[in-house]
Amino acid sequence: MLETLPTIERVPGFRATGVHAGLKADGALDMALIASHSPCVAAGVFTTNCVKAAPVLVDMEKLAAARTGYRAVVVNTRCANACTGQQGIADAHEMAQATAAALGCDAAQVLVMSTGVIGTYLPMPTIRRGIELAAAALGDDWEAAARGIMTTDTRPKLASLAVTTADGGRCTLAGISKGAGMIAPNMATMLALVVTDAALTPAAAQTALTVAAERTFNRIVVDGDMSTNDTLLLLANGVSGVALESPAALAQFQAALEAVCRKLAQDIVRDGEGVTKFITLHVAGAPDDAAAHRIANAIATSPLVKTAFFGADANWGRIVAAAGRAGVRVEPERMQLWLAAGECEGRPDAALRLFAVGMPTDYQEAQAAAIMRQPAITIWLDCGLGAGAATVWTCDLSHDYVSINGDYRS
Amino acid sequence: MLETLPTIERVPGFRATGVHAGLKADGALDMALIASHSPCVAAGVFTTNCVKAAPVLVDMEKLAAARTGYRAVVVNTRCANACTGQQGIADAHEMAQATAAALGCDAAQVLVMSTGVIGTYLPMPTIRRGIELAAAALGDDWEAAARGIMTTDTRPKLASLAVTTADGGRCTLAGISKGAGMIAPNMATMLALVVTDAALTPAAAQTALTVAAERTFNRIVVDGDMSTNDTLLLLANGVSGVALESPAALAQFQAALEAVCRKLAQDIVRDGEGVTKFITLHVAGAPDDAAAHRIANAIATSPLVKTAFFGADANWGRIVAAAGRAGVRVEPERMQLWLAAGECEGRPDAALRLFAVGMPTDYQEAQAAAIMRQPAITIWLDCGLGAGAATVWTCDLSHDYVSINGDYRS
Repeated sequence: MLETLPTIERVPGFRATGVHAGLKADGALDMALIASHSPCVAAGVFTTNCVKAAPVLVDMEKLAAARTGYRAVVVNTRCANACTGQQGIADAHEMAQATAAALGCDAAQVLVMSTGVIGTYLPMPTIRRGIELAAAALGDDWEAAARGIMTTDTRPKLASLAVTTADGGRCTLAGISKGAGMIAPNMATMLALVVTDAALTPAAAQTALTVAAERTFNRIVVDGDMSTNDTLLLLANGVSGVALESPAALAQFQAALEAVCRKLAQDIVRDGEGVTKFITLHVAGAPDDAAAHRIANAIATSPLVKTAFFGADANWGRIVAAAGRAGVRVEPERMQLWLAAGECEGRPDAALRLFAVGMPTDYQEAQAAAIMRQPAITIWLDCGLGAGAATVWTCDLSHDYVSINGDYRS
Repeated sequence: MLETLPTIERVPGFRATGVHAGLKADGALDMALIASHSPCVAAGVFTTNCVKAAPVLVDMEKLAAARTGYRAVVVNTRCANACTGQQGIADAHEMAQATAAALGCDAAQVLVMSTGVIGTYLPMPTIRRGIELAAAALGDDWEAAARGIMTTDTRPKLASLAVTTADGGRCTLAGISKGAGMIAPNMATMLALVVTDAALTPAAAQTALTVAAERTFNRIVVDGDMSTNDTLLLLANGVSGVALESPAALAQFQAALEAVCRKLAQDIVRDGEGVTKFITLHVAGAPDDAAAHRIANAIATSPLVKTAFFGADANWGRIVAAAGRAGVRVEPERMQLWLAAGECEGRPDAALRLFAVGMPTDYQEAQAAAIMRQPAITIWLDCGLGAGAATVWTCDLSHDYVSINGDYRS
């Protein structure tokens, strides 16, 4: 049984905070620290970009060496510590070292995340001061932690769930994420951390996280760019004593983890740079699931489709054209395209069919326009070829996206 | 010897015009007709989109049936005649038939092109009227023809060259193109037509055009979208009597054709929707040419890179990050990135190196910013891995792109 928690619940054994270290000029929170009093099993999913930031390389190395014993994650904004060579690696290690010193643990027990501008070095005195402040402030302030990892995000992103397993155990999950730009089919400038008091083996934790990422964070598209810094971490401290040993209990945990990740991922789209519309895009009837995902990504990354949504223009031909160039065989005569207002998890009940048997239907333009003016819109594209399906969550492309990214550094 | 012609030269045997048929509400030219008094060898390169517009399907069918005997190309704007099923096919055939009737030839001798909104039917009475007007107006008005194919283009695109071959023959080429949006790595909502009075075999014409397209039109990126209607046609009427029989003469013709296509393609980028900057992007040192092209396309289609150019922000980390996610192996430690003002055909002489051995160089930000403020910028990215190279021409992503595409249909 999943229980959506009204606020971010204290996950037993974890403390969190966010502080203003001095990285952001406006006094906003710019670093976050999350710590567990008992050692955690850790799992991670990282950017597949060949150009990986120093904190990604350092975390990957740590997780390759050990999957247990983790005590903390420290995060900074404003500087991605990417394209910074050996100095960047040394700085990431020093960030973990300073955190370990402040918490009284070992540097090997601390994971690091950075987000911000690529190609600048971490201002280490500021980072060290932030770590001191954060260690002193550690408490139950998940909202501050969520705020402390924001870049161009306009609001903090948090999710929390409790699960009562079939075995009668109860465990809790809580997570934070940040996104906004560079959000792509394969992870994004997206940092996310989920903690739980469930007890997981390292292998179970990694499998659960990899599957959840594939179904949630890897299904969101803001602009099609992929960052050097994308990181999703899971820390499980086992404090609940719920061991998730039965397949049923593990499946319940998986569902809860995916629900938390889905909320964190969708919130990244909702708060995407300049976003005015949230689009749920279902592709069905593709030759296989991978083909459906490729088609969905081609549509979701199309600037012409995204600007049409911004303009509330039911210019569905752009959707069909994007599907046609996805690099997957489609046949326009077999395609059918529906549009519906709102967020529909599956095929919308009350949808307007715009295109079928290779031609426009006789829909009323006014009806299509009314749907396009909604803040949430669902697209259902049936390729009519097979059983492959995929869902992607995406958004429009607005003037504000251009403004935000035209002067991000200035 | 190539001879750039000061104006569009009359290509012997060809006539051209553009007319206002009534498709555009503002009275602008909206159809074009190009005709040859003697039959032409024809070659074509078409969109690889699975969703192909009716005129594309009709032209492909005609060219599959016959490569010789063509007399005319008729073009309309405002309606792409795509996603229009059997009615669309019938309309495209009727467009050729009406043109043939007006010119006194056979429908099989007429090729058709359409550009505009997807998913609407051709207004055939208006089209028929336009054909009558155009046939009556046929003359040497290449500029009117270039204007008659414009959609969101802001200016007509023409190119013309004369070639004196090693054999002493002289032939002429002239071409028109339109672009503006939906311009992608593999063709675009791009229509282009090149005519010549050289005598070519069907096989030589197709080979020359395919090679030229690969090196020119397939190297431009405005927004990464690919249209249902992309068409590049070559008509050769042989009136000059220059048969291009020697390999040297054929190579000279190929060079001239590529020069005409490069000008027409680059003009599409320069006049791309909302474009304020023209970017020449060279990728060198890739494992092979295909990898270099993939890396160049990843950079050229990145919204974050494009908005940084719009904002004149030398945020080079976005270029490196885009290269890293191209799906091709790169190693940041081996990459070097240079920036230069202006359009450089090869490696810029006076370039600013921003990134090397995995780290930022000690360049001056003011110097980088000064380059970024130029209307034309060249990027040189050396991957340091091999001998693969590719050049792509692209542009920035501006507020005007969003405005133009947010209300294209309204």
